[in-house]
Amino acid sequence: MKVTLVVFSGDMDKAMAAFNIAIGAGSMGMEVSMFFTFWGIHILKRPNAPSRAKGLIRRMLSMMSPPDARKLPLSKLNMLGMGPFMMKKLMKQHRMPDVQEMMSLAEQSGVKLIACTTTMELMGISKDQLVEQVDRVAGVATYLSEASESGINLFV
Amino acid sequence: MKVTLVVFSGDMDKAMAAFNIAIGAGSMGMEVSMFFTFWGIHILKRPNAPSRAKGLIRRMLSMMSPPDARKLPLSKLNMLGMGPFMMKKLMKQHRMPDVQEMMSLAEQSGVKLIACTTTMELMGISKDQLVEQVDRVAGVATYLSEASESGINLFV
Amino acid sequence: MKVTLVVFSGDMDKAMAAFNIAIGAGSMGMEVSMFFTFWGIHILKRPNAPSRAKGLIRRMLSMMSPPDARKLPLSKLNMLGMGPFMMKKLMKQHRMPDVQEMMSLAEQSGVKLIACTTTMELMGISKDQLVEQVDRVAGVATYLSEASESGINLFV
Repeated sequence: MKVTLVVFSGDMDKAMAAFNIAIGAGSMGMEVSMFFTFWGIHILKRPNAPSRAKGLIRRMLSMMSPPDARKLPLSKLNMLGMGPFMMKKLMKQHRMPDVQEMMSLAEQSGVKLIACTTTMELMGISKDQLVEQVDRVAGVATYLSEASESGINLFV
Repeated sequence: MKVTLVVFSGDMDKAMAAFNIAIGAGSMGMEVSMFFTFWGIHILKRPNAPSRAKGLIRRMLSMMSPPDARKLPLSKLNMLGMGPFMMKKLMKQHRMPDVQEMMSLAEQSGVKLIACTTTMELMGISKDQLVEQVDRVAGVATYLSEASESGINLFV
Repeated sequence: MKVTLVVFSGDMDKAMAAFNIAIGAGSMGMEVSMFFTFWGIHILKRPNAPSRAKGLIRRMLSMMSPPDARKLPLSKLNMLGMGPFMMKKLMKQHRMPDVQEMMSLAEQSGVKLIACTTTMELMGISKDQLVEQVDRVAGVATYLSEASESGINLFV
């Protein structure tokens, strides 16, 4: 069984849901690909990587976007960052991994993390600005060929 | 044909879309499971069930979340509750069922409602606080085994 | 291989993601159906078509909704329309098609655009207010019969 997830959202809660499914599937022996596109690309950004976005709009977009997986907003109850802070605290109390830790667990379960070419070009993000867990950078044709072989396809 | 829906969202409009698909599939003889996770868990809360969430963060989360399916926000045009009020009025004029009624229709069509274990633990919600239509409480492994047998998988 | 997409969202970014997948799949020879429901119906509205919504709520809903595909909001960083303006500028600099152009490309790739009956009735939108690229108006039973034959099913 193959599983392919499109991670369109850059929200912490949706990233957690996607990684939970991916890690679960990976540890059950399924072959998992996660395709990060649009806002989802921010999840893959390497902490403290300097932005090299060129052009006014790209630089503004970069400034207004979360710098990496540790600073993702919540899709609900974000409350200017209070929500994610509380959620992370709750998860820690509960001994649940955060998104960064989930990314490593996913890699260890054999989950392939793929970054979307078009998004990276549009937002002015280069491969060396992404975390090392990223398997490769690819476009929609790659996604579709993975998805067409998958029994579980989700858009998150 | 088997259908498995992840209901991640706790928004009225998305819940309606998910239930519409589920009821349609159920009445066409398909085997349907709906897996309620994260914000989606609020859809399953029993009206007037007292919150027993422990700890400051959980109590705050509980206070800021919709108490049950009758009080869900809209994902767009929520306008502090005006949007859902208007949408419900429009649906009534149109003789369309609301989310609570859809849940009963789903159950009657044989749709299985499954509540996510991890979400319930995280948010401090126990099984007796959920509506009686809930078939069972289960984790990601159960979801994945249902999903891997399903021809239609959606993440709502 | 058949692909069926539910386009529930009326956001520009999600519409772009859906059309990108649809166009890619169509040009790879896959058979693609896009089923536009709820907020997604606004993507299909014909530019400058006069609203004929009847009743106070429907008229208000119509007034507060994007008039057509050129005026869709972003799901993030909308900033009262600044976000979509900047995104469209960035896409133009990048020679990427906008949503309207994607709709034509989709049609040329053989993608079938289907508008949801229930949504149209609920929101008071008639077929002649939709763009000519719309293949037909259909309900959840049609969606489910398409989806049950599809290897890739997504909810956007």
